[in-house]
Amino acid sequence: MTFTLVSGLAQKDFVCDLPFCRVLFEDNADYPWIFLVPKKNNVRNMLDLTSEERLTLMRETEIAEKAMNNLFHPTQTNVAMIGNKTPQLHVHVICRFEGDPCWPGTVWGVPGQPYSAEEKEKNIQLIKKEILALCQK
Amino acid sequence: MTFTLVSGLAQKDFVCDLPFCRVLFEDNADYPWIFLVPKKNNVRNMLDLTSEERLTLMRETEIAEKAMNNLFHPTQTNVAMIGNKTPQLHVHVICRFEGDPCWPGTVWGVPGQPYSAEEKEKNIQLIKKEILALCQK
Repeated sequence: MTFTLVSGLAQKDFVCDLPFCRVLFEDNADYPWIFLVPKKNNVRNMLDLTSEERLTLMRETEIAEKAMNNLFHPTQTNVAMIGNKTPQLHVHVICRFEGDPCWPGTVWGVPGQPYSAEEKEKNIQLIKKEILALCQK
Repeated sequence: MTFTLVSGLAQKDFVCDLPFCRVLFEDNADYPWIFLVPKKNNVRNMLDLTSEERLTLMRETEIAEKAMNNLFHPTQTNVAMIGNKTPQLHVHVICRFEGDPCWPGTVWGVPGQPYSAEEKEKNIQLIKKEILALCQK
């Protein structure tokens, strides 16, 4: 399956590939934050998926949420499909903590702190390992 | 099935009941905006659903999105589960338009204009009718 990422997503760090989605990492040290991007072209939002593809997306989102929850134990998990600025379907999975910089507001449009190169790589590897472990279950 | 809405959701207007979710209406005339709330107690986010319930939620979300898309023809549809302030799982389905008051930013935390009583009732009835029609297909 070949697919193309729009520029806003192509610059994100790669975590791993699931059967239907590519998992990407947001370089914002304020929140553990990943994206799931269906590996299908010309998908602007979920209305461009078939019903079966939606369910597959939800199954993979479940794995991603569980992995993030297992690793980071957030107060709340925000899962969202917005795409006003980046019109290629991507599911945000964001760990939120009481007292984090935007709590209890939403995080979109608020600049964050980047990770150090070492911390970024450590987090990407942790997330990759946990997602792939949950895929084996 | 008995369930209780937290106060932040109990004050929203009722649209209709689907097998798994209650559909509620947001009184914000800036955006056509509804919620799906699973009719199950003690569900803070999707991690509190079984895998099968998640898929049911996605099937009903698909119906809600299609109904809103058919009625309002938005530029983009925002679908989100946040719940930082209202810790009972509710899926936002929001029609967004290029040039709307928050475009291309997100709408949460931004006060909107209420509908007139007549416009609100008209919209609720339109949405109810379209959702129930799609459920028959």
